[in-house]
Amino acid sequence: MSEKTLPFTQEQLNEIVKKYPTPFHIYDEKAIRANARAFYKAFDWAPGGFTNFYAVKACPNPYILQILKEEGMGADCSSLPELMLSEAVGLKGQQIFFSSNDTPAEEFVAARKMDVIINLDDISHIDYLEKTAGIPDGICFRYNPGPLKKGNVIIGKPEDAKYGFTKKQLFDGYKRMKEKGVKHFGLHTMVASNELNWEYFVETAELLLDLVVELSGTLGIKFDFINLGGGIGIPYKPEEEAVDLNKISGGIKALYKKKIEDAGLSPLRIITESGRMVTGPFGYLVSTVIHRKQTYKTFIGLDSSMADLMRPALYGAYHHITVVGKENAPMAGPVDVTGSLCENNDKFAVDRELPVLETGDLIVMHDTGAHGYAMGFNYNGKLRSAELLLKEDGSVVEIRRAETEADYFATLDYPGLKK
Amino acid sequence: MSEKTLPFTQEQLNEIVKKYPTPFHIYDEKAIRANARAFYKAFDWAPGGFTNFYAVKACPNPYILQILKEEGMGADCSSLPELMLSEAVGLKGQQIFFSSNDTPAEEFVAARKMDVIINLDDISHIDYLEKTAGIPDGICFRYNPGPLKKGNVIIGKPEDAKYGFTKKQLFDGYKRMKEKGVKHFGLHTMVASNELNWEYFVETAELLLDLVVELSGTLGIKFDFINLGGGIGIPYKPEEEAVDLNKISGGIKALYKKKIEDAGLSPLRIITESGRMVTGPFGYLVSTVIHRKQTYKTFIGLDSSMADLMRPALYGAYHHITVVGKENAPMAGPVDVTGSLCENNDKFAVDRELPVLETGDLIVMHDTGAHGYAMGFNYNGKLRSAELLLKEDGSVVEIRRAETEADYFATLDYPGLKK
Repeated sequence: MSEKTLPFTQEQLNEIVKKYPTPFHIYDEKAIRANARAFYKAFDWAPGGFTNFYAVKACPNPYILQILKEEGMGADCSSLPELMLSEAVGLKGQQIFFSSNDTPAEEFVAARKMDVIINLDDISHIDYLEKTAGIPDGICFRYNPGPLKKGNVIIGKPEDAKYGFTKKQLFDGYKRMKEKGVKHFGLHTMVASNELNWEYFVETAELLLDLVVELSGTLGIKFDFINLGGGIGIPYKPEEEAVDLNKISGGIKALYKKKIEDAGLSPLRIITESGRMVTGPFGYLVSTVIHRKQTYKTFIGLDSSMADLMRPALYGAYHHITVVGKENAPMAGPVDVTGSLCENNDKFAVDRELPVLETGDLIVMHDTGAHGYAMGFNYNGKLRSAELLLKEDGSVVEIRRAETEADYFATLDYPGLKK
Repeated sequence: MSEKTLPFTQEQLNEIVKKYPTPFHIYDEKAIRANARAFYKAFDWAPGGFTNFYAVKACPNPYILQILKEEGMGADCSSLPELMLSEAVGLKGQQIFFSSNDTPAEEFVAARKMDVIINLDDISHIDYLEKTAGIPDGICFRYNPGPLKKGNVIIGKPEDAKYGFTKKQLFDGYKRMKEKGVKHFGLHTMVASNELNWEYFVETAELLLDLVVELSGTLGIKFDFINLGGGIGIPYKPEEEAVDLNKISGGIKALYKKKIEDAGLSPLRIITESGRMVTGPFGYLVSTVIHRKQTYKTFIGLDSSMADLMRPALYGAYHHITVVGKENAPMAGPVDVTGSLCENNDKFAVDRELPVLETGDLIVMHDTGAHGYAMGFNYNGKLRSAELLLKEDGSVVEIRRAETEADYFATLDYPGLKK
């Protein structure tokens, strides 16, 4: 199995941990920027300008959003705090895509005030939006193809998903919106998560492009954009390969020419809402081995826990582990790498082949740049870790401090509790 | 299917939500106290005094801990913030059981300073404790029976679990502790979670009692207590029945007489660390229906999400739902009850038979008094809800405020972000 590389040397990491005690997440600015540029380059043919609206939930840190904004990305939000984060970094109006479901009134009100792109999840939300916040002059609907499209493994069958309009509802909904004077239309779907097969995304685009043609023809409306959603996977395992964005883009380009240009519907902007693929591979959870335990198995105890990275405990997800300074050491047999949470499934890896591990070893978990810190909780009184940024010049800054006990007690007002 | 009852009428709940907007968790003080008393009564025969050390992680709210303290319970902690919460309510020293794993040095230091009962998870922690915090005059070890005991469905096979000493390590460990001058000994195990079969706990007690006899005889030490752990389940489904504590107690009493009294090892205190059974059935998540959606299925959207109750999304766990005021209404077909988180598995119930639901209906989810609020996270920018206490006199007080955006941004220091 090939080893995954790190953006820092052992010496550099030793310097970092002197200043910032483990555990922490650290993000690689240079790689995030290079990846964002490659993403945009792959879609530079797209008429009207390609935009990826970064799924804020993947890594809701304003310093990361700022970098992505500088690379031309917008923000995909689905809650008020996410809208506020996006606004804080200077994203405005149509640079923000608001794609929530089961939306409370106050979030529609905030979204309208900020004049962001509103993506409705359900036909009943038309009346709800009108009543609570008013109808904007542009609208997007989320399409759920139901049995017309096979879901991928992670997201399950589209017809069981809580998201989106049926095809018939799309026709009814756009017609109603046209009658209400709406001028700008978009169409969105999202039917995959962490999918590594590029053809899946071309098929999804075809589904939307065909639907745009059909909706435009039937209703006499002009679509400004399609949003292909996110769902582009990343190679968590060393033997996996990143999705070839040029293949996705090439496939969509050919379809665009045949279906959109020839029907006179161009320009139709192509937009996406990738999160995982944008930051996932460029974040690392750094921990220290604090215990080595031998019972019926060997357990390596870290100073982090599932509060810092929940995917392995939650989904049995694989995150590659590098033992810093032992990249070329021989494997010493399978171990379980555990956190300290009082939950038996608080394990970062089960039966993982690793070199001999000793207390004090620095452990780097790869691909924590999306759905890593973001999914953390305080179960068992665990405090969430800090986030650091490895800047392009090699310096390191803290972009989120670690939680303290005072944070944990913040919502309590109890006499005996010092804050 | 029989309906589960609520501790308030529709009129009372309407008054509560006027003052405290949904969603919130509400706990029933009267029922918590009555249950605690029944628990203690079942074990009133136990020599030296029975104690349940409440597993703080189940519901880490000091107002709840205070009630349980008044009912004679101690606290079972496994992190520094949990120790601090227990201290805040006036629990002291031997009223606190510190049962962590993969423990960081600073937590051993704090536990020693507070002079709580320390339950070591691994033989290597003897040296670690000695080096970092010093050896106390009493110690408990956590036993992992490995293949000698079948784990229950939830906790899995004991030999795969990260917890505890092997049998051989127990002998070695107590011997070393005796040599270091330790005077007081305890033995602990925890091999089940949410188990409804009472015999399981009697078998666990037998395992520990036999081991106490064997260890005492071989090593010439006297045990002060055995800790049977927690793991007593609760009837989440209406057709399930609560564990009969008198059966557990009676079974243990018979074993105690035969194995401990007759061997002259009495008094040996019986202690437990139940969390779920102590508060679980007496907490309720109250939400409001804000959307009703009809696509390939019917979806009922609430103003809460998996951030308020993660068990259904995480484990597919069943939580019974009462639609307030419609307890006797006919069922109207299966629906999915969803939250607003941008995760497809953010569903409180799938294909649940419920009466016709309309927006504005109040929905009560049962059995959220343990591992409910406690497991909440901020994924997707979701803010955790408030906690209320329904007091014995029928009045309601807020015992934890809901999170605000400022809480969500508390660990960020970003120029554009108003706090």
